[in-house]
Amino acid sequence: MRCSVIAVGTELLLGQIVDTNSSWIGEQLAANGIDSLIQVKVGDNRERIVNVLRSALADADAVIMCGGLGPTHDDLTRDAIAEVMGQPLEMHDDIAAVIRSIFESRGRRMADNNLQQAMVPRGATVIHQTRGTAPGLICPVGDKVVYAVPGVPHEMHDMMDRAVLPDLRRRGGDTSVIASRVIRTWGESESGLNERLNPIIAELESLGSPTLAFLASGWEGIKVRLTAKGSTADEARATLDAWDARVCELVGEVVFGRDTQTMESVVLDLLRERGWSLGLAESVTGGLVSGRLTAIPGASDVLRGSVVSYASDVKFDVLDVPRGPVVSEQAAIAMAEGARRVLGSSVGLSLTGVAGPTEQDGQPVGTLWVGVALPDRPAIATLLRLPGQRDQMRQMAVISSLDLLRRRLSGQ
Amino acid sequence: MRCSVIAVGTELLLGQIVDTNSSWIGEQLAANGIDSLIQVKVGDNRERIVNVLRSALADADAVIMCGGLGPTHDDLTRDAIAEVMGQPLEMHDDIAAVIRSIFESRGRRMADNNLQQAMVPRGATVIHQTRGTAPGLICPVGDKVVYAVPGVPHEMHDMMDRAVLPDLRRRGGDTSVIASRVIRTWGESESGLNERLNPIIAELESLGSPTLAFLASGWEGIKVRLTAKGSTADEARATLDAWDARVCELVGEVVFGRDTQTMESVVLDLLRERGWSLGLAESVTGGLVSGRLTAIPGASDVLRGSVVSYASDVKFDVLDVPRGPVVSEQAAIAMAEGARRVLGSSVGLSLTGVAGPTEQDGQPVGTLWVGVALPDRPAIATLLRLPGQRDQMRQMAVISSLDLLRRRLSGQ
Repeated sequence: MRCSVIAVGTELLLGQIVDTNSSWIGEQLAANGIDSLIQVKVGDNRERIVNVLRSALADADAVIMCGGLGPTHDDLTRDAIAEVMGQPLEMHDDIAAVIRSIFESRGRRMADNNLQQAMVPRGATVIHQTRGTAPGLICPVGDKVVYAVPGVPHEMHDMMDRAVLPDLRRRGGDTSVIASRVIRTWGESESGLNERLNPIIAELESLGSPTLAFLASGWEGIKVRLTAKGSTADEARATLDAWDARVCELVGEVVFGRDTQTMESVVLDLLRERGWSLGLAESVTGGLVSGRLTAIPGASDVLRGSVVSYASDVKFDVLDVPRGPVVSEQAAIAMAEGARRVLGSSVGLSLTGVAGPTEQDGQPVGTLWVGVALPDRPAIATLLRLPGQRDQMRQMAVISSLDLLRRRLSGQ
Repeated sequence: MRCSVIAVGTELLLGQIVDTNSSWIGEQLAANGIDSLIQVKVGDNRERIVNVLRSALADADAVIMCGGLGPTHDDLTRDAIAEVMGQPLEMHDDIAAVIRSIFESRGRRMADNNLQQAMVPRGATVIHQTRGTAPGLICPVGDKVVYAVPGVPHEMHDMMDRAVLPDLRRRGGDTSVIASRVIRTWGESESGLNERLNPIIAELESLGSPTLAFLASGWEGIKVRLTAKGSTADEARATLDAWDARVCELVGEVVFGRDTQTMESVVLDLLRERGWSLGLAESVTGGLVSGRLTAIPGASDVLRGSVVSYASDVKFDVLDVPRGPVVSEQAAIAMAEGARRVLGSSVGLSLTGVAGPTEQDGQPVGTLWVGVALPDRPAIATLLRLPGQRDQMRQMAVISSLDLLRRRLSGQ
């Protein structure tokens, strides 16, 4: 199967919104073994949408159209598909009833133009809406197919998972079940991981399944994604388990979690299991570590708080750091102990370093001291040299310090 | 002029990288009065690149190709353009010399494939490289034109500003100078701004210049961008000044800055001007306010630090908040005063609220109390009701609290 994507919306062309939907769809297509041909952005102009759709259908077996399904006069995807199909649009009363009931349940008046969303090209199959008011569409065009899904990301994700991807795989003759797993790593570059996993990559290429892909994701480490096919979900899962173990034989010491786990959630879970609370003392990161930990609902079970001691006097006066250089082993240790004492936590984590733009106290940009104070043990500090400019250095400091704490907690 | 964009790279189609380059280019084209037709992503496949380029050239007057200019066998943009032009690629010795000198200045050995970047289709004009090793290209195809720029954003931005946009405007017969200004607002929705600016928008539409556009930018407010043409830069700037004043007559009370100013930089500047330091006490935002302020180099002049008092006991014990409900006016006032006292700052800012997923102490998700303590004045607290789920609520809390502080500092 060769598939193209058309994202509809003038705001995408004008750069007012970045088209992340196509990227997400491209990732899903690859994971499902479907080739991507092209991805196009087109404005809210019926003639142009029709031309782009015809041209995409000439090369691809399937086209996914994203956006332009709403109730306004700018929402033209339905009309364009009907024109390319050579079919009229017909009102579906059951969809209209659902749209009416959504407005009623919210206690809002429904403007009549909302019923435009109940119009369906003759011959198309409806993907029922579970979240928004616009249903999706599966539209046969000769022996090819056009899908229409909303541009609102969570509605689009839902319809892709529930209807479009299974339909595409069925059309491609693929009756297998697909399962994937993301193995999350921190502490090795993508090229380094690639080199160390080379024996497995070569073996997998000859086998064909599972596939292995690297996904970079900002300041959240490199993800290794395994995607396996099986005749049943259990079989696919067993394949993933076996190859997950093989990956861990080679690079296990940089693996910190899987799938929806994040460095923050893993650290909070490790602390929670031990019945320990956490207190932070942040300087160079200015509150980013605690900002990221508190993004996780339930962090309050574990996190007492943070003393963001940006000014040196705050380090001396609040955390009892001895007067002297504040980017130092001694300061990091005193900060971790100070955080534990001031915040009343069982564990203290501290960060002091130089984010730039200029060096500080003779220490170069990128210098980071991380202090860790565990219960009943003397605090220790570790020196890291991080790359990058101010923003990059600070974000690297956040995840690097959490990884150090994770390793101490799990006894590595 | 009608212009299309082709972003080249398999990693874009697979969703491993989001194509933000096209969005940026779309924004620049709009600001320069050039119509965008379509934007396409295509993989590193010569035949497909050629087909997409031919098809884009059939409809557009100009096509900008972004990416695929590097030294590897996957970099095929030059070859594809030469094929569409029907011209051979020729080695340009002066470009080769520049590439060699870049490697020499970095003390690195140059692999021979780097000289591929010195190949130019016959008849094309070179956009000289000032940053990377790959030059850009201006390639005539009949009475139309194809531009090639690198995919590395800062190299691409440089060549667009320096060569592509001026060339496009010249070809479109536009000899004027363009200047633009971004007026940054917080506290009014896009539709609300639109409604209030309607008299100006109508007037501008009949005049044609300057143009006015709304740009949403996440948690940084709504931007109103004015773009003016003039026969000189001074004239364009004078037009911007006049219309900036007109915009401020209608919505001035929500304007917090212009162009590169951010809410953080404005607040830090207001404090710096007064010689005042800032101390924070954050609960619901968990350190995000101080994390954002410390992203600005030089924040240490002003920001003493933050007490992230996530656990109630930290509020009581460290900040001397009276025992009782911690999402309350009383708690916010005590936190702001506590921050000032503990951190030794002239100004205290506090945030306590409910981010969810569930309500707390009978207060619904979205409740936010912001406390502000200025020198020699009693602290006051303000209640806000913010929309959204956990992440959205917390980010709204960050900028809303800084905006409240800004208004207090500037006497609004």
